Formats: sequence, C-alpha cells, structure tokens
Amino acid sequence: MSTSRGEADGAAIRGLLESWAEAVRAKDYSGILARHSADILMFDLPPPMESKGIEAYRETWDLFFSAQPDPIDFDVQHMNVVAGEDVAFVTALMRCAERGTGGRRTVLEFRLTVGLRKVSGEWVVVHEHHSVPSA
Amino acid sequence: MSTSRGEADGAAIRGLLESWAEAVRAKDYSGILARHSADILMFDLPPPMESKGIEAYRETWDLFFSAQPDPIDFDVQHMNVVAGEDVAFVTALMRCAERGTGGRRTVLEFRLTVGLRKVSGEWVVVHEHHSVPSA
Repeated sequence: MSTSRGEADGAAIRGLLESWAEAVRAKDYSGILARHSADILMFDLPPPMESKGIEAYRETWDLFFSAQPDPIDFDVQHMNVVAGEDVAFVTALMRCAERGTGGRRTVLEFRLTVGLRKVSGEWVVVHEHHSVPSA
Repeated sequence: MSTSRGEADGAAIRGLLESWAEAVRAKDYSGILARHSADILMFDLPPPMESKGIEAYRETWDLFFSAQPDPIDFDVQHMNVVAGEDVAFVTALMRCAERGTGGRRTVLEFRLTVGLRKVSGEWVVVHEHHSVPSA
C-alpha cells in the first residue's frame, strides 16, 4: 500500500521494525532504543495511559520483560507500511507470550501502530500504540 | 509538533477530527464516514482484533452507539498532529461514557491514533486505533 515513490522508504521502515522486534527478543535495550526519538509517545498494552519520552519508554520494556516467560516471543505476524516523504505510519498484528493459568505459556496476539518521521534522512520512531481489544 | 510546512495541513487535520468527533456525538453516520477511506483499517476498543473496509468500520459505530448512554460523549481531550506532505498521523487522549455498576453513567478515557493520507489534495483517514490499557 506504500506509494511507489515511497517503496524504498517502505522497505527501510519494514527493516527498522524487524530489527527492533529482533532486539526485543534478545532483550537488547540499545537495539530497542536505537531508532527511537527522545520525545517518543508510547501508548502501551498495560497501564499507564501514556508514557512520554525515551526514559519512560525504556521503562515499559522493563515491565514487559518482567512479565514475559523466556524465551521472549515478539513477532510481526502481518505489517503494512504507509510511507510519505517525511512522515509514515505502520499497522501490524503482533504476537508475544504470556503466563496463563498455572504459569503455563500462552500466546498473546496484539495490535500495533507505529508513527515515524524522517529526520536528517533517517526514519525515527516517534509513537507506538500497542493494545488488545477490551472485553 | 507539526513541521512549519505542515502547519496548514495540521490545522486541516485537526478540523477534520473535531468534525468527525462532532458527528459521532450527533450519531450522524454520513458525517462519521465522510472523510474515511474505502479500505480503512480499524483497531477498535472492543473486539474484534481488526475491522477492514468502510462497511466493517460503519458497523463498529453500530456497536458503539448500542453500548453508549445518551447523550453521546465523544471528546478530544488532547490531540497532537504529525503532518508530512502526503502522510500524517494523530495521537489523542479521548473521553466517552459507559454504563457502570447499576447502569450509572461513568467516564471512559481512551487512547486514539489516526493515520491519514492526502489524496487529490484532501486528507483521508485510512487507519484508526482505539484502546484502553489492558489490566
């Protein structure tokens, strides 16, 4: 669905997010944070409502890793990139794990929207929105 | 946070979303759908995981209105627009109502991310992601 002008940008953004997901699986904080803006706005799956700035964003990963069973699952099931010249967003269906009844490992599917800006020729993540439907 | 080139676009998008929220409060379906793409991808607050296309999107509003107490609350508390030349996204904190214990009207705060493309000079909504944090 990327514009033809944006095909190279679409591929760059797709690669950026695949590398980010790989860093999450490796609990590699420098990789997780590598392409994120100092003023990122995070709407995470668990509370709070929002986390502003890279330090608060980093802490959402502390919470994530404390709750996830090892090894970490964090996989892109389906991704769509809408890339313009200098702003882009990505929609994705994602999968991780959670501890179910009796501590058993179960699959958790969630939705992800990512907002990006191109800064000095490089795509930077300025927003993430993770969620599951509310029962 | 809009780029200076994007200030007119930022104002247009802000107006588009305020008009959309007003149409929701009026249960005005033609107003709700007026600036939405035929292939919109909706990640709504209640299930399902995703709704694809304008007919499925319309049905999410049937569900919303069936669950909301009258009069309809649907208010933008805070909105930030990141507008490029032909792609933009919006992050917002929103407020609506729900029926609490004993049917009493209570406030429901939620997060909203909206993705837009400029098509023939007009901004069109191609994605919405509504959620509350998962307990």
